[in-house]
Amino acid sequence: MAERRTITGFSNPTVKFMRSLREKKQRKREGRFLAEGLRLLTDARETGHVPELLALATGREPHPLLDALEAAVGDAGGEVLEMEPALLAKVTGKDNPQAVAGVFAEFDTTLDTLDRSSANIWLVAQALRDPGNLGTMLRTGDAVGAGGLILVDDCADPFSVEAVRASMGALFTQRIARAPWEEFHAWLRQGEGETGGQLVAASLRDAVPYRGAPFTAPCFVMVGNESRGLPEAYEAACDLRVTMPMKGRADSLNAAIAAAVLAYEVLDTFE
Amino acid sequence: MAERRTITGFSNPTVKFMRSLREKKQRKREGRFLAEGLRLLTDARETGHVPELLALATGREPHPLLDALEAAVGDAGGEVLEMEPALLAKVTGKDNPQAVAGVFAEFDTTLDTLDRSSANIWLVAQALRDPGNLGTMLRTGDAVGAGGLILVDDCADPFSVEAVRASMGALFTQRIARAPWEEFHAWLRQGEGETGGQLVAASLRDAVPYRGAPFTAPCFVMVGNESRGLPEAYEAACDLRVTMPMKGRADSLNAAIAAAVLAYEVLDTFE
Repeated sequence: MAERRTITGFSNPTVKFMRSLREKKQRKREGRFLAEGLRLLTDARETGHVPELLALATGREPHPLLDALEAAVGDAGGEVLEMEPALLAKVTGKDNPQAVAGVFAEFDTTLDTLDRSSANIWLVAQALRDPGNLGTMLRTGDAVGAGGLILVDDCADPFSVEAVRASMGALFTQRIARAPWEEFHAWLRQGEGETGGQLVAASLRDAVPYRGAPFTAPCFVMVGNESRGLPEAYEAACDLRVTMPMKGRADSLNAAIAAAVLAYEVLDTFE
Repeated sequence: MAERRTITGFSNPTVKFMRSLREKKQRKREGRFLAEGLRLLTDARETGHVPELLALATGREPHPLLDALEAAVGDAGGEVLEMEPALLAKVTGKDNPQAVAGVFAEFDTTLDTLDRSSANIWLVAQALRDPGNLGTMLRTGDAVGAGGLILVDDCADPFSVEAVRASMGALFTQRIARAPWEEFHAWLRQGEGETGGQLVAASLRDAVPYRGAPFTAPCFVMVGNESRGLPEAYEAACDLRVTMPMKGRADSLNAAIAAAVLAYEVLDTFE
């Protein structure tokens, strides 16, 4: 076990540091991000991600998973802090703080880190602005056995507190890559002929019904920005465009919803 | 056209009133809620919901739909206000305000207002706490041609700014009812034999694969609270329990995602 250091003041530099990681600019500068909750941190540990810094609320219930977490942090040479729940709440910005939070190093999010043959399904989000949608897509990716989430163009930060929370731990189990469209598209086509990849999007133009569509692995399911959808040129670059029934007045689904309905259809095709 | 009244000060009582509707307590007291955006307000108008009070940003682009909206408000004896964009931003709490916002009377949300035979699919949310999830479910309901969304037990407020926004106008096209479980369950079983209704939930207990499950209309697709899921007794009361593939570490989907994947499966069954 690592020795625990007790922190009492809001002005403590470590508290300030942790709290600062709620800001994107600061995360980028430090290459670190915050995650909270015993279950989420356990998912992280079990998939090889140990926090550099672990903050525990004083007075929390003992738990074997918490012991395991603390031991792992100690083994990795990390630091364990104890602080009052009210102080931890200020760190995480949540009224009802989880009894534990950790600071992690951000992952490498270049396309080179992806092995497209490692999974049949990949999710792709273009200019997705809502960190909650982004986290939900990671969670859905985990559920459908996707390899990861590729963030194309200017997306929300996957390491934001909101995205990490909404991912429910899938941030640690899904691969994440970030790239401008040209780079992603070049990477995708690079593998053509050998491993390649099928780029699929929901579209109203030149599309086939999503149900029973000819999906092939590895299948890259792409959704666009919440307000604007995908640029026409990106849709045109897809190998397959599919339509989903829209029985009401609206002509689109929430981006994370569309990705999930499509991904489950792809999963069924491959089973 | 209604005569436009120009409002300049933040301390104006109408501005204060509109702004106060961002608070649940105040919405409840006044029986009024806020909605914003020309497209959303047009959806409202075209489905018979005209705002009592319409606020326009000065300097916005003219638009035939805005003219139509203004005319409808005038015809209905409502009021039209003009205010600086910065002031409207304070009303809606959004940095980039839509150029138009309206105050609507809340709808009757008792179960009696629902005609279950009017649609084959209904969505049901139990103790759903996230207004964004709630709005997304309304939007999904619109897309699958559901009749509406039934909020069981203590759910987020469907008239909150976040829920209205996330619904993308479906708040006005979907029926909404609120009831404690006992009341909902009694209402559902009331119709049995004649119109009745099949209550369906995703579950890990005594469940069949969701794909190709024997859904029957009217089908009530129920999801539970974001953290706790459905109470066991509610699951047990379902007519059909279905499982969805979970290929990763997580054992559940986001509630709105689960509802959507199930609802699209039900839709396919009924087509």
